[in-house]
Amino acid sequence: MEPTAPNSSGGHHAAAADATGPTDTTVTLPPLTLRDVPRLPAALASPSPAVQNPISSHPYFHPPTTFYISPGDVSLRHAFFDLASAAPSPLVAYRRAGPRRDIAVDPARASAALVTCGGLCPGLNTVLRELVVGLQELYGVRDVFGVAAGYRGFYGGDEDHVRLDPAAVDDWHKKGGTVLKTTRGGFDLGKIVDGIVARGYTQVYAIGGDGTMRGAVAIFQEFKRRGLDISITGIPKTVDNDIGIIDRSFGFQTAVEIAQQAIDAAHVEAVSAVNGVGLVKLMGRSTGHIALHATLSSRDVDCCLIPEVDFYLEGKGGLFEFLYERIKKKGHAVIVVAEGAGQELIPRTDDQKREQDESGNIVFLDVGPWLKSELGRWWKKEHPDELFTVKYIDPTYMIRAVPANATDNLYCTLLAHSAIHGVMAGFTGFVPGPINGTYSYIPLEDVAVAKNPVDVNDHKWAWVRSVTNQPDFLISQA
Amino acid sequence: MEPTAPNSSGGHHAAAADATGPTDTTVTLPPLTLRDVPRLPAALASPSPAVQNPISSHPYFHPPTTFYISPGDVSLRHAFFDLASAAPSPLVAYRRAGPRRDIAVDPARASAALVTCGGLCPGLNTVLRELVVGLQELYGVRDVFGVAAGYRGFYGGDEDHVRLDPAAVDDWHKKGGTVLKTTRGGFDLGKIVDGIVARGYTQVYAIGGDGTMRGAVAIFQEFKRRGLDISITGIPKTVDNDIGIIDRSFGFQTAVEIAQQAIDAAHVEAVSAVNGVGLVKLMGRSTGHIALHATLSSRDVDCCLIPEVDFYLEGKGGLFEFLYERIKKKGHAVIVVAEGAGQELIPRTDDQKREQDESGNIVFLDVGPWLKSELGRWWKKEHPDELFTVKYIDPTYMIRAVPANATDNLYCTLLAHSAIHGVMAGFTGFVPGPINGTYSYIPLEDVAVAKNPVDVNDHKWAWVRSVTNQPDFLISQA
Amino acid sequence: MEPTAPNSSGGHHAAAADATGPTDTTVTLPPLTLRDVPRLPAALASPSPAVQNPISSHPYFHPPTTFYISPGDVSLRHAFFDLASAAPSPLVAYRRAGPRRDIAVDPARASAALVTCGGLCPGLNTVLRELVVGLQELYGVRDVFGVAAGYRGFYGGDEDHVRLDPAAVDDWHKKGGTVLKTTRGGFDLGKIVDGIVARGYTQVYAIGGDGTMRGAVAIFQEFKRRGLDISITGIPKTVDNDIGIIDRSFGFQTAVEIAQQAIDAAHVEAVSAVNGVGLVKLMGRSTGHIALHATLSSRDVDCCLIPEVDFYLEGKGGLFEFLYERIKKKGHAVIVVAEGAGQELIPRTDDQKREQDESGNIVFLDVGPWLKSELGRWWKKEHPDELFTVKYIDPTYMIRAVPANATDNLYCTLLAHSAIHGVMAGFTGFVPGPINGTYSYIPLEDVAVAKNPVDVNDHKWAWVRSVTNQPDFLISQA
Amino acid sequence: MEPTAPNSSGGHHAAAADATGPTDTTVTLPPLTLRDVPRLPAALASPSPAVQNPISSHPYFHPPTTFYISPGDVSLRHAFFDLASAAPSPLVAYRRAGPRRDIAVDPARASAALVTCGGLCPGLNTVLRELVVGLQELYGVRDVFGVAAGYRGFYGGDEDHVRLDPAAVDDWHKKGGTVLKTTRGGFDLGKIVDGIVARGYTQVYAIGGDGTMRGAVAIFQEFKRRGLDISITGIPKTVDNDIGIIDRSFGFQTAVEIAQQAIDAAHVEAVSAVNGVGLVKLMGRSTGHIALHATLSSRDVDCCLIPEVDFYLEGKGGLFEFLYERIKKKGHAVIVVAEGAGQELIPRTDDQKREQDESGNIVFLDVGPWLKSELGRWWKKEHPDELFTVKYIDPTYMIRAVPANATDNLYCTLLAHSAIHGVMAGFTGFVPGPINGTYSYIPLEDVAVAKNPVDVNDHKWAWVRSVTNQPDFLISQA
Repeated sequence: MEPTAPNSSGGHHAAAADATGPTDTTVTLPPLTLRDVPRLPAALASPSPAVQNPISSHPYFHPPTTFYISPGDVSLRHAFFDLASAAPSPLVAYRRAGPRRDIAVDPARASAALVTCGGLCPGLNTVLRELVVGLQELYGVRDVFGVAAGYRGFYGGDEDHVRLDPAAVDDWHKKGGTVLKTTRGGFDLGKIVDGIVARGYTQVYAIGGDGTMRGAVAIFQEFKRRGLDISITGIPKTVDNDIGIIDRSFGFQTAVEIAQQAIDAAHVEAVSAVNGVGLVKLMGRSTGHIALHATLSSRDVDCCLIPEVDFYLEGKGGLFEFLYERIKKKGHAVIVVAEGAGQELIPRTDDQKREQDESGNIVFLDVGPWLKSELGRWWKKEHPDELFTVKYIDPTYMIRAVPANATDNLYCTLLAHSAIHGVMAGFTGFVPGPINGTYSYIPLEDVAVAKNPVDVNDHKWAWVRSVTNQPDFLISQA
Repeated sequence: MEPTAPNSSGGHHAAAADATGPTDTTVTLPPLTLRDVPRLPAALASPSPAVQNPISSHPYFHPPTTFYISPGDVSLRHAFFDLASAAPSPLVAYRRAGPRRDIAVDPARASAALVTCGGLCPGLNTVLRELVVGLQELYGVRDVFGVAAGYRGFYGGDEDHVRLDPAAVDDWHKKGGTVLKTTRGGFDLGKIVDGIVARGYTQVYAIGGDGTMRGAVAIFQEFKRRGLDISITGIPKTVDNDIGIIDRSFGFQTAVEIAQQAIDAAHVEAVSAVNGVGLVKLMGRSTGHIALHATLSSRDVDCCLIPEVDFYLEGKGGLFEFLYERIKKKGHAVIVVAEGAGQELIPRTDDQKREQDESGNIVFLDVGPWLKSELGRWWKKEHPDELFTVKYIDPTYMIRAVPANATDNLYCTLLAHSAIHGVMAGFTGFVPGPINGTYSYIPLEDVAVAKNPVDVNDHKWAWVRSVTNQPDFLISQA
Repeated sequence: MEPTAPNSSGGHHAAAADATGPTDTTVTLPPLTLRDVPRLPAALASPSPAVQNPISSHPYFHPPTTFYISPGDVSLRHAFFDLASAAPSPLVAYRRAGPRRDIAVDPARASAALVTCGGLCPGLNTVLRELVVGLQELYGVRDVFGVAAGYRGFYGGDEDHVRLDPAAVDDWHKKGGTVLKTTRGGFDLGKIVDGIVARGYTQVYAIGGDGTMRGAVAIFQEFKRRGLDISITGIPKTVDNDIGIIDRSFGFQTAVEIAQQAIDAAHVEAVSAVNGVGLVKLMGRSTGHIALHATLSSRDVDCCLIPEVDFYLEGKGGLFEFLYERIKKKGHAVIVVAEGAGQELIPRTDDQKREQDESGNIVFLDVGPWLKSELGRWWKKEHPDELFTVKYIDPTYMIRAVPANATDNLYCTLLAHSAIHGVMAGFTGFVPGPINGTYSYIPLEDVAVAKNPVDVNDHKWAWVRSVTNQPDFLISQA
Repeated sequence: MEPTAPNSSGGHHAAAADATGPTDTTVTLPPLTLRDVPRLPAALASPSPAVQNPISSHPYFHPPTTFYISPGDVSLRHAFFDLASAAPSPLVAYRRAGPRRDIAVDPARASAALVTCGGLCPGLNTVLRELVVGLQELYGVRDVFGVAAGYRGFYGGDEDHVRLDPAAVDDWHKKGGTVLKTTRGGFDLGKIVDGIVARGYTQVYAIGGDGTMRGAVAIFQEFKRRGLDISITGIPKTVDNDIGIIDRSFGFQTAVEIAQQAIDAAHVEAVSAVNGVGLVKLMGRSTGHIALHATLSSRDVDCCLIPEVDFYLEGKGGLFEFLYERIKKKGHAVIVVAEGAGQELIPRTDDQKREQDESGNIVFLDVGPWLKSELGRWWKKEHPDELFTVKYIDPTYMIRAVPANATDNLYCTLLAHSAIHGVMAGFTGFVPGPINGTYSYIPLEDVAVAKNPVDVNDHKWAWVRSVTNQPDFLISQA
């Protein structure tokens, strides 16, 4: 939900009347630049074919004037500043998301296509449901289709284009996965755009990961090149939260919630054994957000390993020494490791060195079993007379194949409605998403290249340290 | 978790190179005023007795320079602006929360008291746990006490002052309620401050609702009047989310999550009956946030009634007519009603008119059974030959007496650590909390009077309308 | 699941070779009487029109000879005996449920009607789903209909008769409630049987409470009177477990499971207050099984009140004295009260004395609010200077409107398949259900009158006593 | 809970008065042999030193005469018979569990030791808790100790012998794992019995798997050889339910419940992909009970593979052909495989052929990854142009490291109390457990050798077939 707008009820005084504190101080901010999103050719035409928003004639609801977003409403990318040093200049702002009084698209002539690509993520079906419900119930768009099996569905047969309506999607938000099936790959730009044109779609909503967002950029540019009045909106789906600019990705909080079950099980196994270690691998190839949040939520974790932080196993200041000390002190230890952590430590066969995934990246090795095996080997060598147990848990699909929780369901609802309002206002090539709590529109191109690593120099990572009291593996580098 | 700080990875261009969109525009913002928080006399003394933060000599963790919050770091209260009209002037900022390189309090001489007041809320025990763990493990504060049974515990016996340490609180975050017991009332300012002084406490953390915050303001002022070097920090506890300025209150998301179970049950009862109605009463005396969020998350709700919106039962455009139409269309209906909704519609006996609660407010009547009874009466009168069933669910304590979910556990952790960092920096009379995602320090006085009603003129309330398609009960006033 | 059949793997010796124990002893049992179930006229005809069970020609599965139930297979009603005294004579046995090699009903000419009546119960939809799937996939019965809205649906319009198939019911077992709607009342024997005949149904499956079972007996007798070859099977639905002969009713274990949430909340509220009491009302008008099982599972309950045990509030040995002592000792107390407990203690208005429900019974008063109010009144009178809090939870619909858990889903599956096998074998007027773990067929007439009170003279009730250490309220009678 | 004792309320008539059914028939049963359990030397002494059960002088509870189990009470091992053929002769009975009016052990001189061995199982902590609470609160046994770290704890130091009381174990039933730590191995009979004698234990309660039960038999025999008045009771712990004679093992229903989450995730992954397969490995090395029950509860499973049934992968009638057909028909498939299934199909390296576990058995290979890999390889070879996805889930520790659900908590409570009553009555060398619903005492020796395979010739396995419509892999053998 969007935060409360600033209002006068906060009762803040003009000056701090408090003798024990400093008086309020006033400074000047740098200028603000709006990073705008593109518009459809028709929306740019002059005179613009503005249409009254059909919500204004809703049978039940009488929108007050404040209901609509003002054309000048923007959100600020920067939420905090250092008054003592120069603020980033210029400050960047994005268009605020929401319904406009006048829209640029005629609902009667609109035809929307929804597509899901890549791996599963809690909330996928909620986004689909809300796109269908919002388009039909708010704007009266009759033609809404689900495109099955990812981008390749655009050039597939009729069976890949399923007409959807509110009755058909009624309980989708209670289902994990995606009712529209999803696939990877199959991105053939020409065929896709030809398919979109052939079927008369005027709005495309693409839900997927970073590859899908880059594909959406290409489609957007091809639309522009061909001068088509078709909008494309990207809705980033990454359970890992590895997407930049927006506050967080949908499904992420559900994943963190369910990850607690795996950590709980690892903790129980560890405390129930003599010198027991519980080891949990969580999703996160390039970023450790799930591992970090799950660790902070759980408080049972003794060490959290993420891709953003190097570590080493043996020797002074290493992981194994730390674990041994912790076990001697507490009797057990729990480790959370993100998928992408320690990739450079795991020995690769020549085959593995050559192997590349579809995107040309070196393949990921499975850090979990490797770590379990190395730890067992080390213990046997260093402490052969002491009992030892390590239990390894890999809960991947049990975390991502669940329905969204309430928080994510609401988030997906607002995302989908934000997307629709933007499209109806004539925007294209954009991504909807919350920025410091305000739903905004961001150029697709920016989101497609934005990363979101855990900032280990910020004090965020320090929370984990203070929670786990784990080493930062800097000693060997000293 | 705090949002990612603005970074260059977003790759935003200097100008929108896109022919189909407008170029980026630049504007000037109004000046910014820092709304500062008070400091302890000792922190204001000159020269200030600054002490190196003990985190800098942490045995495992080597904080980088970026770990500490700069003294000039502030967060902005306003997250969005209308470029077309004058922005609020001046803009308001608050101090950013987090650890400081130099602190103003000597941990070896600190003695902290934690107290919980008022009703239960998911996360209470997590806040307590993290205050204990953070004070001892980060700052080395040895003397941490839990004060039992609310404010009255300050002038209670020794059994009301329980020494706490990390081992004692280890699993508190997995428990609902408050291990320190809580009570209402018992606020006797003189006795409380005398008790604090007598026991040598130098830090007080008060966790409670708006009454507790007002009490904390009084204690703060009494500390100041007496010239005491004792800090007081308020941590607002309101499962209803009816506190202003901060983004949301802790426990709120857990409550919304659990409320889904009640709505699910009401929905099942409604759809399994002929002309079935499920009616759920949710917490929220002055604000409808839980009802609103639970409705948006659930999507099974046909009508959501909150204190901020008037409604009427009978006649054209009234609730009962709407429900009848909805039942005729769908076969059933689900209603969510916040505790505080419709208070002026419920007939009061003379006794009830005279009765007042401890704060002098008129007593609340129970809207749930009244609405159930009125609906049944109306149906019998208007549609005597049609089957009808209404099932009423009041899940109150089942929602608030649960452990915090992962999201709220993390939130409570950051709240508690923010509080500690502020206190150690020498601040007092403040509340920690996220503002547009940035943890900040806000003067207690401001929070104590800030309300957080659902803004029904904003488009937030409109989300509910578009979700439920419910009337806004304006017809009769037209 | 049925228990393992006796097999030789137990390895029990012919005699106890143990010098420290007595040798095995051998006794003679009384004779055994089979309490048989009725058969359809066609099944009794001579020569019986036996048909080979279509399972024998299943495309995938090749049933071994041991797959089919022998015509002589029976289950024993008595699971334990006192060797020292005369066993009940004769012992009673029932026909064992399961598939028969030869069946008496031609699947091609069968037409089944399923109906649900009365209140909701976890597992209702699973029973329906399995009846549909079993009839079609095992026996090839094409015509299966759901009758909407209870018994009255039989004489309703076409919209009350919905054709069902496995695809339509695929996910019903994951839904609470009943997809076929349910109602109470509407039992008009003539109309119902006329409707059954008019629509050509040859099998009726009636799922409902004791009223429904009595209705099914009447329908069975009317079928017999008219000489119809239509079978009727009753599947008892009572979340309270107040049905006799069978081991337990479906949905009961799910209800006990969910009741833990209410007790947990009550416990948290109680321990978080000074002198706190948590009070939970659970379903159970005539029997206290849910209260008893929930108490034994939870272990947080200090007192469990059920309809089978009288109690009194004030005075020596009374409930309030006990609670006060418990609170003084532990600081809090939790009470579980079954709906039907204490009815004779609650004062009735003249209206309430006159009022009767549809079955002519005196109306139930709500024991929960009454007990809460009496306790508060007593405390204020007896201990005016001591803090006191009582929190009352009534979770009724949140317990019964949930999907069945795994145990109940499996149970409902076996129940439904047992019912089908019996009907196809030519039985009618029967109820399927487990007796000491063996699924059996029991005459409808017997089940319709069988009660299942908690036996408070048995040691079962004593388990609760030893768990709660609560008084048995016998002192005042001594 | 024990089933209701036969009572007259069932209202069964002397004869079936029903013209459409056969009359009741009466037969004679074979003789019944009691398979008794051993007693302590002191209990066999003459005159027996009988003591009044202290429950009779309970401060709150006044046990009626029916509360105590009669010395002649027995339970019947056979729950069903074939009247048409000779029943097993003689029938076998066991002593019924429960409190005795006279006991043979003096509580004041008793000292109990509790030990847990082997892997985790839901309910372990509940059994421990109830042993402590029952011994102290019912019988007044003061000296109760937990022996840490399995059998080896008996000859460990003082730190391995922890005094327990009701306050210490109060919330153990809400925790997964075992608070007493558990280990494997370390069975040294002489040292163990010496340790027991040295510490003066008079009662040993050993909770563990089949190895633990065999160890308990050895301890029992050594007690007897030495003529010691020390009782030993075995409580079988096997989440796999692979123990014979008793109805089921504790924790099993919880495991089946949690396994649903893994199957749900696999189902979601499968349906969300084009030609998707979800593969779940569940516990069960020698028996497929968890796989079987989880399949019957879930209904989303297309094929269930268990150790008791051979299968083959390729060729006509093989698993892969079946899966391909199912995917063509439904679009996806879900497989559940028990750990022990297909062991003879997995190729073994020479090392693996030589390797043996501690008990001398050949090591288990991991069927899950092998099956996943074989299926992928086969699809690529046979259907190279069709998309295909298989997702593999191994939830092992997430299933067994959870707290017991309500049903298992109650079961563990009754088990523990049954054990105590038996020990106090002077029995030794026994196992408590439900037989056809009646809690009974069974000689340890019998349980230690009893297996509990899924009987695939019974119609139990056929339920799975009828649910999944899977092949029985007999074609190739035809």
